Amino acid sequence: MKQMDGELTSVFDHIDQNRDRSVDRLLDYLRHPSISAHDIGIREVAERLSSLLTDIGLEVSTVTTPGHPVVVARWDGAPGKPVVLLYGHYDVQPPEPLELWTTPPFEPSIRDKRIFARGVADNKGQHLAQILAVEAHLKVHGRLPCNVVFVLEGEEEVGSPHMAAFVRDHRAMLKADLAVTADGQMHASGRPNLKFGSRGVLSFELRVRHATRDVHSGNFGGVVPNPLWTLVHLLATMKSPQGDITIEGFHDAVVPPTAEELDAAARLPLDLEAFKRSLGLQRLDEPADRPFYERLSFHPTFTLNGLHGGYGGPGTKTVLPHQATAKCDVRLVAAQDPADILAKIKAHVARHAPDVDVICNDLGMYPSKTPMSTPMAQPIQRAILSAYGIEPLLYPTGFGSLPGYVFTDILGIPAFVVNYANADAANHAPNENMTLDCFHNGIRCGAAILHELGL
Amino acid sequence: MKQMDGELTSVFDHIDQNRDRSVDRLLDYLRHPSISAHDIGIREVAERLSSLLTDIGLEVSTVTTPGHPVVVARWDGAPGKPVVLLYGHYDVQPPEPLELWTTPPFEPSIRDKRIFARGVADNKGQHLAQILAVEAHLKVHGRLPCNVVFVLEGEEEVGSPHMAAFVRDHRAMLKADLAVTADGQMHASGRPNLKFGSRGVLSFELRVRHATRDVHSGNFGGVVPNPLWTLVHLLATMKSPQGDITIEGFHDAVVPPTAEELDAAARLPLDLEAFKRSLGLQRLDEPADRPFYERLSFHPTFTLNGLHGGYGGPGTKTVLPHQATAKCDVRLVAAQDPADILAKIKAHVARHAPDVDVICNDLGMYPSKTPMSTPMAQPIQRAILSAYGIEPLLYPTGFGSLPGYVFTDILGIPAFVVNYANADAANHAPNENMTLDCFHNGIRCGAAILHELGL
Repeated sequence: MKQMDGELTSVFDHIDQNRDRSVDRLLDYLRHPSISAHDIGIREVAERLSSLLTDIGLEVSTVTTPGHPVVVARWDGAPGKPVVLLYGHYDVQPPEPLELWTTPPFEPSIRDKRIFARGVADNKGQHLAQILAVEAHLKVHGRLPCNVVFVLEGEEEVGSPHMAAFVRDHRAMLKADLAVTADGQMHASGRPNLKFGSRGVLSFELRVRHATRDVHSGNFGGVVPNPLWTLVHLLATMKSPQGDITIEGFHDAVVPPTAEELDAAARLPLDLEAFKRSLGLQRLDEPADRPFYERLSFHPTFTLNGLHGGYGGPGTKTVLPHQATAKCDVRLVAAQDPADILAKIKAHVARHAPDVDVICNDLGMYPSKTPMSTPMAQPIQRAILSAYGIEPLLYPTGFGSLPGYVFTDILGIPAFVVNYANADAANHAPNENMTLDCFHNGIRCGAAILHELGL
Repeated sequence: MKQMDGELTSVFDHIDQNRDRSVDRLLDYLRHPSISAHDIGIREVAERLSSLLTDIGLEVSTVTTPGHPVVVARWDGAPGKPVVLLYGHYDVQPPEPLELWTTPPFEPSIRDKRIFARGVADNKGQHLAQILAVEAHLKVHGRLPCNVVFVLEGEEEVGSPHMAAFVRDHRAMLKADLAVTADGQMHASGRPNLKFGSRGVLSFELRVRHATRDVHSGNFGGVVPNPLWTLVHLLATMKSPQGDITIEGFHDAVVPPTAEELDAAARLPLDLEAFKRSLGLQRLDEPADRPFYERLSFHPTFTLNGLHGGYGGPGTKTVLPHQATAKCDVRLVAAQDPADILAKIKAHVARHAPDVDVICNDLGMYPSKTPMSTPMAQPIQRAILSAYGIEPLLYPTGFGSLPGYVFTDILGIPAFVVNYANADAANHAPNENMTLDCFHNGIRCGAAILHELGL
């Protein structure tokens, strides 16, 4: 392990001494719901964030968009040093189903050295760690080692529909040399990660209604079309039992991974039995022979998020339902364009099941890719080593979707993702949690990144 | 129209004079829920029925079964005359979804000369009509023209699981020359129907769980199997987009219709455009080229009653669900055996999707068939003509499922179904209803059947 610089050591000491107080500040932040999908609490939380960033000495603008505001906070006191854009999102997923939470999602609870609350890992605990890292540098040294611009949006969980336009319209305010996002989860082994991109995503619904009401399955069965069968047969044309997405033209824009990327994916550690045990899985998804990390890094997906139609209560009900809906998302890889993919889905559906409607209320998120050989990766890798005492795992791409493309494709800068949350954080699920250690180490990592970028 | 017998005319007069009082008695009956699927109110309603039948002068036994009791009521005062078994069911479907009812399902309401209530058509209004027909004969003439045995069960809506054993165990009590069931709906034109059989039915669930919890579709998509896709791909192997059921061996036992049956189905009137309009349909179910009444008479079906898994709330939720359930029913035609079909479904599922469970809590119902040429059909046809002034339509088989097989296959007697309810009765659906005229004419028809059988 590299000898640590005294300047960083004193910041780490400050962070360690304030560990409990930092947790209290996170708990307070988590008590305020900010559910973008339902427009609950968004403005209040944006204002709290703005106050916090102002209080620690940054120049804050709360920028309105056609959706939820973006909180931007700059510190430009290190001329000649790089500018790092720190991205995060203050909105959270809806907490439902509530009955599966051990404690209420917006009443944070500490059990077994973990904080349980909606948004603790995704993403409040992670960007708050970045903010507290900035605060620690400013408290200890009265300045930052490099320049910083925070970009904290309120619509990530609904697909960041206004981020691209926001970035295009505010290039000057957002001028930076690299972007770093703290989001997502560490490896199951506890090792930190450094990711060079993310998959894109497009969410849509397939809706079908045949009759104007539910009817008796005996008196009408065989005559009245069944919307569930319509969806089943349509969906079966869109993805094969072998796991191949069969929407016409879906793979046209896919750029195959480079040898370096394939090699990096192959080097990621995997305890497949432990993974399966952790989720109670009997098997992985199809195709059975595809390497684990290649599935998550280089292949698009087509997930049914929910499918509902007809009777779902106890016992039997011999009813023929009149409507059904499938909520879907597709994860995209470079260089698939969500608008193009949506057009292909619509064309496919029109061809195979013209009575099904494709509903899409957002434009989705492009995939993002930063070359693994970029020199800007070096200080980030060193920072992670400083904070955790171990080299990060290098991922050619993250598995989830973050709006990294606005940095790589619009601002033209390298974009990295580091993960401060524990592997079992249960993002998007009941009992979302973050360990106290992960939160604390996240603050340390944030501090180390600023330090390394200033060298 | 045949000159009417004075004996029947006086019974009809009595029925007409008591029209309003009969409606009041039906309203009272409908206020008492008897939901077999949820075991609500069953015993209370069986007791009310028993008292009613005793009061009008029948010899009543309430026979316990391992499920809900069967109310049997005999009148044997016409030696040498035929014995007609009158079957009905006092249980009703669950009323959900409650929010779609204009008035509460167990607070009967009269609007536009219709009674709205759960069970009014299916089947309380129909077997009460039979009972009031018997009462009318007894009131006017002090006797019945033929012998009668009522068999009123409380489990038809959950598949009559104990009817076969009950009939096998009580052959003496049920000795009869023919069985007549008043259930189901008249033709959309308002013409009465006479049906010579019914489709069987088997209800089951397909259930699958992969992971122990829902997971993030980005972090796990492509690795964790999706139970909805598992169901989609399994279901696609069970029925083709062209409407053919493709479960291996499913059609093995199907007896093709006779020329007489095909001819009868072809003669049934059809206003296809009016039918489609009545349900807001753009098209019929597949296969597109199959004649309308052949679909409903001679072909089995595979209906998805409900399919549920994952997120169903507003907006998007990029979740990969861990479990899903499809509730299904298959309608069977002669001579498919539900136990054999269940075994074939289980074998098919085991072969195509071994991680899906097939759950079946009842043994289903056999199809039933009475030859159209049976002489016993003649008095029933004449009775319908007397009551309605028009010849009935003759159906080789009804479309729904009634336990007629216990009469045809166990007792070895011809079994007929007449329909007293209006075509738009909305059985099994919100706002189930029966017109006042249909109820009144049902009582008249019941009286005429007894009369014709006594000639």
